[in-house]
Amino acid sequence: MSSEHIGDLGEFGLIAALTSRFPITGDVILGPGDDGAIVAAPDGRVVISTDMLVEGRHFRRDWSSAHDIGRKAAAQNFADIVAMGARPTALMVAFAVPADLPSQWALDLADGLAYECTLVGATVVGGDVVRSDVITLSVTALGDLDGREPITRSGARPGDLVAMAGRIGWAAAGLTVLSRGFRSPRALVDAHRVPAPPYVSARIAATSGATSMIDVSDGLVADAGHLASASSVVIALQTHLLVVDVPVAEAASAFNVDPLTWLLTGGDDHAILATFAPGAGLPEGFVLVGDVREGDPGVLVDGEPYPATGGWDHFSV
Amino acid sequence: MSSEHIGDLGEFGLIAALTSRFPITGDVILGPGDDGAIVAAPDGRVVISTDMLVEGRHFRRDWSSAHDIGRKAAAQNFADIVAMGARPTALMVAFAVPADLPSQWALDLADGLAYECTLVGATVVGGDVVRSDVITLSVTALGDLDGREPITRSGARPGDLVAMAGRIGWAAAGLTVLSRGFRSPRALVDAHRVPAPPYVSARIAATSGATSMIDVSDGLVADAGHLASASSVVIALQTHLLVVDVPVAEAASAFNVDPLTWLLTGGDDHAILATFAPGAGLPEGFVLVGDVREGDPGVLVDGEPYPATGGWDHFSV
Repeated sequence: MSSEHIGDLGEFGLIAALTSRFPITGDVILGPGDDGAIVAAPDGRVVISTDMLVEGRHFRRDWSSAHDIGRKAAAQNFADIVAMGARPTALMVAFAVPADLPSQWALDLADGLAYECTLVGATVVGGDVVRSDVITLSVTALGDLDGREPITRSGARPGDLVAMAGRIGWAAAGLTVLSRGFRSPRALVDAHRVPAPPYVSARIAATSGATSMIDVSDGLVADAGHLASASSVVIALQTHLLVVDVPVAEAASAFNVDPLTWLLTGGDDHAILATFAPGAGLPEGFVLVGDVREGDPGVLVDGEPYPATGGWDHFSV
Repeated sequence: MSSEHIGDLGEFGLIAALTSRFPITGDVILGPGDDGAIVAAPDGRVVISTDMLVEGRHFRRDWSSAHDIGRKAAAQNFADIVAMGARPTALMVAFAVPADLPSQWALDLADGLAYECTLVGATVVGGDVVRSDVITLSVTALGDLDGREPITRSGARPGDLVAMAGRIGWAAAGLTVLSRGFRSPRALVDAHRVPAPPYVSARIAATSGATSMIDVSDGLVADAGHLASASSVVIALQTHLLVVDVPVAEAASAFNVDPLTWLLTGGDDHAILATFAPGAGLPEGFVLVGDVREGDPGVLVDGEPYPATGGWDHFSV
C-alpha cells in the first residue's frame, strides 16, 4: 500500500482495498459492489444486531491496535447473534474516518474484522466509508436460526439453573491495568483489547435446551437483571460458584481491588449467561453460577440485592 | 418529555423513548429489547444496505430538522433496497450523540425514521445508542426479494433502453440555495432536506423486466458509470431527454448555473436509473434517458465523454 493516508487513497480506493480483505463464504449470494449485498437466510428469519464504537469512548488507539479494534467490533456483535441461538452469517460495516488516518490503520482494522469472522464462519458483505473527525465504527451482524426457535431473554423459569460460559473479570481487570498506566499482565490487557466470546459453547447451548440466554456486555449483575426482567423471575447468583482466574486474582491483589467487583460488573469479556431446565446437565463450557426463583424480578447476589447494578450508562461516564 | 438533554434521560431511558416510536409490522418477529432482533426473510435471502451520516458532512442542524434527517437517513437506505428489486422490511439504527443534545431532537429524528418507514411498510427493529462529540447516524436496511431474482448493476445489455424514475437536480439546486445563504425556493430546499426516492416505480420496475437498476446517489453520470462498469457496456445518455423541472430551471437562471450540471452530477435526489429490454415499454414513472451500447465500458453524454464524472469522493471535499 503506497498511499500513506486515506485522503490519498480516496473513497473508492479505500473501499476497494477494504473489500479485498473479506473472503466470500457460502452464505454470500452477492458481495460488496452493488446497491446492497445479498445474504442467505435459509431459516426464513434473520437475526440482526448492531453495535457502534467511537474512538475515545469504546477504544483508544494508543491502547489497542486497529486489528484488535476490528476483532472487538466483530466479536461483540457475534456474541449478540450467538446469544440469540443463531449462527452468524455476515457483517455490514460503516466506518467514519479522518482523511489523515494512515491507510494501513484502516486495512489492519479490516483484517481484524476478517480474522474474527473466520472464527464463526461469517464474512463482511458490505458497508459504508465516510469522513469524520472522530473514528466511528458501526457494525451490524446477521445470523441464521437454522430452523430452531431463538433463545431470548424471556424464557427463564423458576427452578432453572443459571450458568455461564466464557471468561469474566478479565477485560475489566485489563482496563484497570491500562487505566493506571501499565501494559502488563499482558493476558489481562489482551482480554480488554479483544474479547473471546464462547461462540462454540453458545452454539451448543442453543441446541441443548437453554431456556434463556444473554451476552454479558453490561456486566454479570446488570445482564442477569435484564434476564430477570424479561422473564419476570429472580436470578440468584452465588459468588462461591464464580471462579476468580489466577491473573485476575493477582491483579486484584496488586491493585487492592475486590476481584468480585470485576466479575460482577465487568462486561467487556462477552461471556454468555444462560438458564437451563434442572436435571438435564449443563452443556460443555458452562459452569453453574446460580438458580432461577419466583419473586419480584431482580438479581440476588448471595441472597442479597447487589448494591450497584454496575450497568454502564454510557451518557453518565 | 420532561428531560431536557439526553444526558438527563440516560442511555436506557433514551432507548425506551426511541423504541416506543417504532410500530411493529408483519415482518417483525422479535423487536427491540433482546440481544438481537428477528426479521422475516420469507425469500430465504436477505438484501442488506448501510449508510452512515455525519453531522457537518451529510447534514447540518441549522439547515435540516431532526425529522428531515431521520427521513433522509431512512430514505437513502430504502432507495438502495428497492434498487436491488427488493421490498424494504426493517431498519437497524446506530446513533452517536453528545450528552447535551436536546432529547426532543433525538425523538424527532426517530419520528422522521418512523415516518419514512411507513412509506415503504418497514419499521425500525433495533439499534445502538452511544455517546460521541459528533452526531453520527448509521442506518442498515433489510429487504426481501419475494422469490424474484435481484436486479443488480450488471445486467444491462447492448440495445437496452436506459430510463430513470424520480426527481433529479432538485437536491443539488436546494444545496446551492442553502449554501448561498437562502432558504427558498422552499421546494428545492425541501428536496435537499428529504429526498423522495421513487419507491413505487422501482418496485414496479423489479416486476417489469428491468435488466439492471441503481440508486442515483453519486450523480447521474457517476452512477451510470457504475452500471456501465458492472455490465461492461456503454451507457449513452441524451440530455434532450432529461426534463429540467421548472423550480430547478428558475434557480439555475437566478444563480447563473447550467441546470444540466445539477441534473448530471447531483445525487441526493435518489432517483432510480434502470435498463430495460427494448420493445416492452417502460414501467410507470420511468422516462427514457438513453440507451445501452457495446464498447469500452463508460458513459457518453450526447455522444461524448462527460468531462467530470461528478461522483463525490468524500475524502476530497
